Amino acid sequence: MKKQKEETKSPFYELFLEELQDIYYAENLLTKAIPEMADAASATQLKKAFKSHLKETEGQIVRLEQVFQLLGEKAEAKKCDAMDGLVKEARNFIKEQEEGLTRDAGIIVCAQKVEHYEISAYGSLATFAELMDLADVKALLVETLNEEKLTDEKLTEVALDFVNEKAAAE
Amino acid sequence: MKKQKEETKSPFYELFLEELQDIYYAENLLTKAIPEMADAASATQLKKAFKSHLKETEGQIVRLEQVFQLLGEKAEAKKCDAMDGLVKEARNFIKEQEEGLTRDAGIIVCAQKVEHYEISAYGSLATFAELMDLADVKALLVETLNEEKLTDEKLTEVALDFVNEKAAAE
Repeated sequence: MKKQKEETKSPFYELFLEELQDIYYAENLLTKAIPEMADAASATQLKKAFKSHLKETEGQIVRLEQVFQLLGEKAEAKKCDAMDGLVKEARNFIKEQEEGLTRDAGIIVCAQKVEHYEISAYGSLATFAELMDLADVKALLVETLNEEKLTDEKLTEVALDFVNEKAAAE
Repeated sequence: MKKQKEETKSPFYELFLEELQDIYYAENLLTKAIPEMADAASATQLKKAFKSHLKETEGQIVRLEQVFQLLGEKAEAKKCDAMDGLVKEARNFIKEQEEGLTRDAGIIVCAQKVEHYEISAYGSLATFAELMDLADVKALLVETLNEEKLTDEKLTEVALDFVNEKAAAE
């Protein structure tokens, strides 16, 4: 493992490592933010979606730790201003908005922005891993990437259910 | 037009309007950030991609102003912490990293995160517009959504060109 790391310790590898630390920070922040979103949600379907995504996120953190280990690096987090901003927006929105289906719809908007951040981050990381011939690392990253894409789709489904329901109730 | 606005002034419409103001802020911020990314890029292909995306962004702002007008609302911007974070990350990265292909690769990572934020935002906005039967508004939003998706794909292409080039040079 150590050999592999030394071979790839180029500026490009350093960039890859920083991106890993960025998403490691983001995922850890999300283990705090997702339960807040679940609490704020009024629809059972949405609460459930967040609870299952929380478990998934915990698994994704373990997967990232495996990646660090495969690279022979310490699992470290690097402050991610973008995820800080996304979570801040979600928290402010929850605080300002009254509970109900409209707030649920807005929470989904926030959550899908978070998912898209992750889809973009893991997409780049997987490409970088491929180009450095780190097949095991790439496989772990792609596994998470696919989970994030599925979560985004699931949120769209839940959103459409709500919004239709809501539109009917107005 | 005024009639249409009054008919739809529900909490759901208010949420939609806030999201519009959020992306209007984000697009305006990007007209400052994209030229900085173009300047920092070393590869001609990337500089070109940013320059053409800047023009597109200016057109997207005009399109948002048309949306506000169709709704009978004033075009207003609402501070968007997420886009502030994304732009801050890109600026810090450019400052910290030496010019070259690795920096280019990192700038693309940042730019694709920006695109994904926009894809998510315009996707939600288009769905909201559809559910409120605002067909003209939806058409404008979908036009921009498709442009953002194409920009993301174009950036992936440019990234793969670089990175392959780079990997060959290492």
